[in-house]
Amino acid sequence: MENVYERALKAHEEWKGKVGIKAKAEIKNLDDLSLAYSPGVAEPCRKIHENVDDAYKYTWKGKTVAVVSDGTAVLGLGDIGPEAALPVMEGKSALFKNFGDVDAVPIVLDTKDPDEIIAVVKALAPTFGGINLEDISAPRCVEIERKLIEELDIPVFHDDQHGTAIVVLAGLINAFKLLKKDPKECTVVVSGAGAAGSSIIKLIKQYGIKNVYTFDSKGIICSKNKDRYNFVKKEILEMTNNDDEDLTMAEAMAKADVFLGVSTAGIIDEDMVKSMKENSIVFAMANPEPEIDYDLARKAGAKVVGTGRSDYPNQINNVLAFPGIFKGALAVRATKITDEMKLAAAMGIASMIPDDEITDEHIIPSAFDEGVADAVAKAVADKAKEQNLIR
Amino acid sequence: MENVYERALKAHEEWKGKVGIKAKAEIKNLDDLSLAYSPGVAEPCRKIHENVDDAYKYTWKGKTVAVVSDGTAVLGLGDIGPEAALPVMEGKSALFKNFGDVDAVPIVLDTKDPDEIIAVVKALAPTFGGINLEDISAPRCVEIERKLIEELDIPVFHDDQHGTAIVVLAGLINAFKLLKKDPKECTVVVSGAGAAGSSIIKLIKQYGIKNVYTFDSKGIICSKNKDRYNFVKKEILEMTNNDDEDLTMAEAMAKADVFLGVSTAGIIDEDMVKSMKENSIVFAMANPEPEIDYDLARKAGAKVVGTGRSDYPNQINNVLAFPGIFKGALAVRATKITDEMKLAAAMGIASMIPDDEITDEHIIPSAFDEGVADAVAKAVADKAKEQNLIR
Repeated sequence: MENVYERALKAHEEWKGKVGIKAKAEIKNLDDLSLAYSPGVAEPCRKIHENVDDAYKYTWKGKTVAVVSDGTAVLGLGDIGPEAALPVMEGKSALFKNFGDVDAVPIVLDTKDPDEIIAVVKALAPTFGGINLEDISAPRCVEIERKLIEELDIPVFHDDQHGTAIVVLAGLINAFKLLKKDPKECTVVVSGAGAAGSSIIKLIKQYGIKNVYTFDSKGIICSKNKDRYNFVKKEILEMTNNDDEDLTMAEAMAKADVFLGVSTAGIIDEDMVKSMKENSIVFAMANPEPEIDYDLARKAGAKVVGTGRSDYPNQINNVLAFPGIFKGALAVRATKITDEMKLAAAMGIASMIPDDEITDEHIIPSAFDEGVADAVAKAVADKAKEQNLIR
Repeated sequence: MENVYERALKAHEEWKGKVGIKAKAEIKNLDDLSLAYSPGVAEPCRKIHENVDDAYKYTWKGKTVAVVSDGTAVLGLGDIGPEAALPVMEGKSALFKNFGDVDAVPIVLDTKDPDEIIAVVKALAPTFGGINLEDISAPRCVEIERKLIEELDIPVFHDDQHGTAIVVLAGLINAFKLLKKDPKECTVVVSGAGAAGSSIIKLIKQYGIKNVYTFDSKGIICSKNKDRYNFVKKEILEMTNNDDEDLTMAEAMAKADVFLGVSTAGIIDEDMVKSMKENSIVFAMANPEPEIDYDLARKAGAKVVGTGRSDYPNQINNVLAFPGIFKGALAVRATKITDEMKLAAAMGIASMIPDDEITDEHIIPSAFDEGVADAVAKAVADKAKEQNLIR
């Protein structure tokens, strides 16, 4: 791995910014100047002053999102501060552009106070057509996102929560198809009760999963331990563990059809996988080390295995979702990204693989497959229109 | 003028953003992804976490400024709100790119509260190498800029104040040269006691001008009316009207070598210009209608006349200053833009015209002359190094 780090460092020094500003208005003479700037610019200003939605017609608003972080939960590095988070936000912006042709502006904030973050993003909102929150620590990120969704009339989307959830569900949809499993009869173990875990649980429950056992670093989410839970874990408790069972991970795995890991604390072993129900599915998505090695999980009997890594089959990769989600939302000027749109996005991703091409090593498209972002964009845009959440 | 407005509207509809985001990191395969994003991106993150100044080395920070407005004083249109101000901020960003190759991000804010604007810009600061404030109403803009300069370690520059002042001084330097006038013996009338007026006065006083009479919409700035002055006008009173005279505009003009107009309230007539001292200079910069018509001012005896308009000689145009100022400041990672740097910038602009090419119709370069931004950038960068205000 050293090699990739050294090469990445050199590349970053050359880029000095993985994204930059491009002038779409060329200004080569006084006439150009009079159209792009004074006096001509007064006219779009006046039009937007009359009708604020004309900002979508005459400015970058309808093509541009902000990628906002406070640098408190960056990759596996933790709270490294805003400047150190900037390479990740720039990377995200580069992915937005490369995969979805969405203009994304990386923005890192010198504050960790949730109220102040909310105030700053609200203040920035007129500039952008959407807000992608990123790498903000849990449970603050959930609170911040909810408040912003409530108060803004542009889509706000915390990718660490929902991006992962959407791609996980896309993978599950095709794995279920392949293994002829009915979600209504499936039990799922989720390792990780943070931002990503809670969004995954919410989305797969909406998809119809029968029961979920959730584990945080201290054990199963059940009412016995309720006192120590933050509001996110309390909500997970509401949605999961139908019979309020107090199980160990090994006991829960023996009842499970599916394991979904999104926490480095949730290591599982071969015996646990062996004990799972028939036609079991294991998505071990901890980065960079999965909760169980791909080959070990397969050898232990899991029929479909996915990881976050690109060097194994079935990479569960957020980049399958977020470029298309914002591309679709911007295309119809969506005001929100609802759970229904997230479900539609997951189905859009899953549909990229024709039924007869789904195999145990190919349940999810690659980020580099042509048309993924467009399929997701169309699914999200259609659903937004159907829900009449457009302007 | 209608025609330019119609054409501008059409052009804006085609552009949908006069600036956009360009991906400098191309991501075409898994290896690209591993360098620009996970896992490689972790390495520049770690380096910046160790040494925050490495953000200049590995991110867009050192090449990028924010153009920030609250939309309260946009062109001559007044308080039209953030969305309606966005075309102007985009225009400014397009000028930054076209003239200085500076990446500038247009940002409009949904708040008019000075404390909140200050908090938002402070929160955004880690993302950028500089902040250009724009179209914020006076005197709030002065308060906001001062506080931000005090609290941030990146350059903060309110162009409506200092951009105009720098270009005015550049024009004066060459006009004085042409007319063999000594600033230390010159009296100047300034019409306009707002943000631009106060910055002009400060800068020309530093350049050595003997005395200034300032007029706001109600008359001359003198101690008699002190009670009604805001803090900006009180500061102007300190710097001007050496003998605290209570003069009409006509009386002041009869004592003046130079008239500088930056307010639509300050119309002057031919008789006033006729009454001025020998070799008089008139910069009538009100937009779109100058305080006195170019030809009328010349006929009345003014030896050098400048306006804000491109259809007359000697256009006093901010675009001569701001792209080079930030280009120079970013090049040396300046922490502030001082008065000395502003003086150096003015001299840099003036120096673009060799002494033997200065004429009454050519005291200031055109924005389209090659090398203006580079001359300004070099002047600013050299002065920043001399003042040791670099990181």
